[in-house]
Amino acid sequence: MKATVIHAPGDIRIENVPDPAIQRPTDALVRVTASCICGSDLWPYRGVTPTTEPHRIGHEFVGVVEEVGSSVSDLRVGQFVIAPFVVSDNTCANCRHGVQTSCLHGGSWGGEDADGLAVDGGQGEWVRVPQADGTLVAVDDEPAAELVPGLLALSDVMGTGHHAALGAGVGPGSSVVVVGDGAVGLCAVIAARRLGAERIVLMSRNESRQKLGRTFGADTIVTERGDEGIARVLDLFDGIGADAVLECVGTDEAMKQAVASARPGGRVGYVGVPVSGSSLPVQELFGRNVGLVGGVAPVRAYIPDLLDDVLSGAIDPGAVFDRTMPLADVADGYRAMDDRSAIKVLLQP
Amino acid sequence: MKATVIHAPGDIRIENVPDPAIQRPTDALVRVTASCICGSDLWPYRGVTPTTEPHRIGHEFVGVVEEVGSSVSDLRVGQFVIAPFVVSDNTCANCRHGVQTSCLHGGSWGGEDADGLAVDGGQGEWVRVPQADGTLVAVDDEPAAELVPGLLALSDVMGTGHHAALGAGVGPGSSVVVVGDGAVGLCAVIAARRLGAERIVLMSRNESRQKLGRTFGADTIVTERGDEGIARVLDLFDGIGADAVLECVGTDEAMKQAVASARPGGRVGYVGVPVSGSSLPVQELFGRNVGLVGGVAPVRAYIPDLLDDVLSGAIDPGAVFDRTMPLADVADGYRAMDDRSAIKVLLQP
Repeated sequence: MKATVIHAPGDIRIENVPDPAIQRPTDALVRVTASCICGSDLWPYRGVTPTTEPHRIGHEFVGVVEEVGSSVSDLRVGQFVIAPFVVSDNTCANCRHGVQTSCLHGGSWGGEDADGLAVDGGQGEWVRVPQADGTLVAVDDEPAAELVPGLLALSDVMGTGHHAALGAGVGPGSSVVVVGDGAVGLCAVIAARRLGAERIVLMSRNESRQKLGRTFGADTIVTERGDEGIARVLDLFDGIGADAVLECVGTDEAMKQAVASARPGGRVGYVGVPVSGSSLPVQELFGRNVGLVGGVAPVRAYIPDLLDDVLSGAIDPGAVFDRTMPLADVADGYRAMDDRSAIKVLLQP
Repeated sequence: MKATVIHAPGDIRIENVPDPAIQRPTDALVRVTASCICGSDLWPYRGVTPTTEPHRIGHEFVGVVEEVGSSVSDLRVGQFVIAPFVVSDNTCANCRHGVQTSCLHGGSWGGEDADGLAVDGGQGEWVRVPQADGTLVAVDDEPAAELVPGLLALSDVMGTGHHAALGAGVGPGSSVVVVGDGAVGLCAVIAARRLGAERIVLMSRNESRQKLGRTFGADTIVTERGDEGIARVLDLFDGIGADAVLECVGTDEAMKQAVASARPGGRVGYVGVPVSGSSLPVQELFGRNVGLVGGVAPVRAYIPDLLDDVLSGAIDPGAVFDRTMPLADVADGYRAMDDRSAIKVLLQP
């Protein structure tokens, strides 16, 4: 079978790898029907995080169950499944609290499971899924092809945007600012609208992303950044800021923008992986009572809820995929994501 | 009249100052019947924050309204009132959101109001109260003497402990860790119990504070600190940590303890004024989805709710006052707070 392997920064290859096999009774084998490239895949691609040896990559995929281990009880061969971006048993103390990203028996796609066994990456033709009952979410009926991008978005970006909105406490009537116009930021707009936000401001300088943001529910676009961006946002919200700010970037600059955009007593929901983490403005958070809630999104917890809305067409997070490529061209996909000519690339094996 | 004036670190004096007078139609004059010394008063006392010129000090007091300005409508002469630790109009956009500490027309006791007019400190015989209708909370009937300490605690420490508990999301069934055994930490125990916490761990090495903490509702005392303290707390909570951690100190060490004591997906409610703010463990907050919510407590918002419980005797935050002194001995009171021989000192004019 073929799968994507990262060798070094900028060096993404499609390679022949051994066919997967059930290794544990809790495993399932999934034939991938669609996978995609994540903004966080660009970290090793850009050398921001090191790649010490070649390994499989990709953590967002959907597909069909082709084989199950002897202890798998909730899945059956032929089911269409969504794989969240981490492995989890969905039964441990942290999973029971809805924090499957901290599963005590979890693992990372393209990395290792809790016992140190290598776990396949998702950008390939097949994937061995550990803790299959806990990890995968099955869709009752074979979904129509046009729904597949939306279901694939549930593997990461839609659930991550939703996590930002929950972290920021978005609810009916909330005023919201979304910092970041990547796939996660755009999905955060969907999530905020879905949770009842009254007014949503999206910060974006990119025309196609602005347009998609408006389609998703943004009322106002702010193109300014830095002090000008902050001044513009405060101006839009009575001079005090918004109830809820969704930080979907992870840079210090974005966090600064987010904190300054929240009103006293407001909350920042953050899902942008902190790139340095060195400069949280703690005194400002404290003095203005701005809460900071978020982290690596436990999308597994959110899929059942969001799934119905994707299937019914109430939300269409699949629209973030503005480029579809064959898996064989995955290296081109990374380039397109890297130079921001694509919002998000969908890969078809 | 007599009032407390700080001249320099360690130099606290009781002095004759001019009698106060109504300066604005929104003012009231209050004859102080009890005031107290706050942990944060120790900052200028210790020279942690600078004292550039002598000024009045103290921000917690209760007393009797003796005169009101022409636009004061909610208060009448003779009423017993509680003064929260900041001035607020209780009508601006931030006050309406319950964040009176960010009042757009507020001010600080012993500092200035929004227009730069000096505001009296609370450790004195009389205080001119700006924005009196918004700032003060009146008690319907003259309270019994034994209730006065509890009412005085509502001016700061009880509301601040409550803010920590709300920030951490304490509710029925919560598991709670309180970091800090000062008056605020002890009141945080009361608040957590009042909000329905199932289990409360108090970190304290001081026997009399441990005892008071148990009286207030702590189930378990942890005396260890640092890595040992963290290990002990995790051990008490299934190895994953508590739902809610109430950080009531403000040092980097306390914050580290607090974050590490929260389970994945848990929350730290923090009210300890961050002394450096330099070392928030952002990567850990993010990776484990630990939220950080809190800040300078808008106690004005909480007094009406907490007041009933003090008057009914359901809670007794006044027990944090373990020393009562005449106002004339205020310098001794600061010394007792500074060397931690007193938890909290009540001053009687």
